[in-house]
Amino acid sequence: MGKIFFITGNEDKKREMSGILADVGIELDFVKVDLPELQGTPEYVCREKAKLAFERIREPCFVDDTCLEFNAHKGLPGVYIKWFLDNMGLVGLNRMLADFEDKGATAVCTIGLALSAGDVHTFRGATTGFIVPPRGSTDFGWDAVFEEEVSGKTYGEMGSEDRNECSHRGKAYEMLRNFLLGGKNG
Amino acid sequence: MGKIFFITGNEDKKREMSGILADVGIELDFVKVDLPELQGTPEYVCREKAKLAFERIREPCFVDDTCLEFNAHKGLPGVYIKWFLDNMGLVGLNRMLADFEDKGATAVCTIGLALSAGDVHTFRGATTGFIVPPRGSTDFGWDAVFEEEVSGKTYGEMGSEDRNECSHRGKAYEMLRNFLLGGKNG
Repeated sequence: MGKIFFITGNEDKKREMSGILADVGIELDFVKVDLPELQGTPEYVCREKAKLAFERIREPCFVDDTCLEFNAHKGLPGVYIKWFLDNMGLVGLNRMLADFEDKGATAVCTIGLALSAGDVHTFRGATTGFIVPPRGSTDFGWDAVFEEEVSGKTYGEMGSEDRNECSHRGKAYEMLRNFLLGGKNG
Repeated sequence: MGKIFFITGNEDKKREMSGILADVGIELDFVKVDLPELQGTPEYVCREKAKLAFERIREPCFVDDTCLEFNAHKGLPGVYIKWFLDNMGLVGLNRMLADFEDKGATAVCTIGLALSAGDVHTFRGATTGFIVPPRGSTDFGWDAVFEEEVSGKTYGEMGSEDRNECSHRGKAYEMLRNFLLGGKNG
């Protein structure tokens, strides 16, 4: 594989991924493709999205998707978290859990990688924590209400370096990197 | 239009729809097609599903989709209700609303009708009510926790005739019927 496309229009993700894959020896390029979001598990949604992306561009490519799984909701809102955040806000996410003792949650980044139409891989980067009242920056999504378990800080309270180190996204990106390195060598 | 396909494998729905469209003068047939479920508003999800169905069978056809919108969640879980019901059960749906005074909800049946690739219509049948602790039959979906506003009964407490009369599905089916009658005469 000489070249791989990251399906995204997000400048931050482009920068982050470029850094992570800098020494892998595979050229990375970017393309924005509008793809439908399916319902289902994070793995299913990402796998199908990667397949669709491959159908469109006919080049090895990958997509990523973020979700937030509440223990008390047995993994939901999951891939639907953006709809709940939009409709209910940060405090609303807390209120959904008011009647449940378990405030535990897992932040998940799933990457779907399509090397060909039939050769699709998924990688799940997960970080555990708790849903808490908003603390820190509310600039990005649900960062302010997800308290990472080890540090006791919300993503909104972390600098970008700390966050990359422990984050679901950092983990998934690292898994992709290792896979590509292995694939290249193996 | 001589013939129209209802995309479903559900025997109850087939029977109900056959009765409703019996005198419309359009032949009704059924076909089961596996279609992906998209994320989005009920209207969007149904419209896209009808389009996909038309792409597959190349005949005038319609799909239906049921959702349950909580006022307190600004319309969610909406089209995702089946995932929440599966994961959390009937009591879990109540618990999601524990911290909200407003237990109001709307049961919605949306029909997406594709007469051609570019001629797609949607019909929204809606019934208002409240999310309550389970009462009556728990045989079907969330029927036992949706108390219809006018009767004060849950769907689970109603006979099928009563339910058809007030239900979101009955209303949407009636809207489809009227549209087809109008189209035929107009």
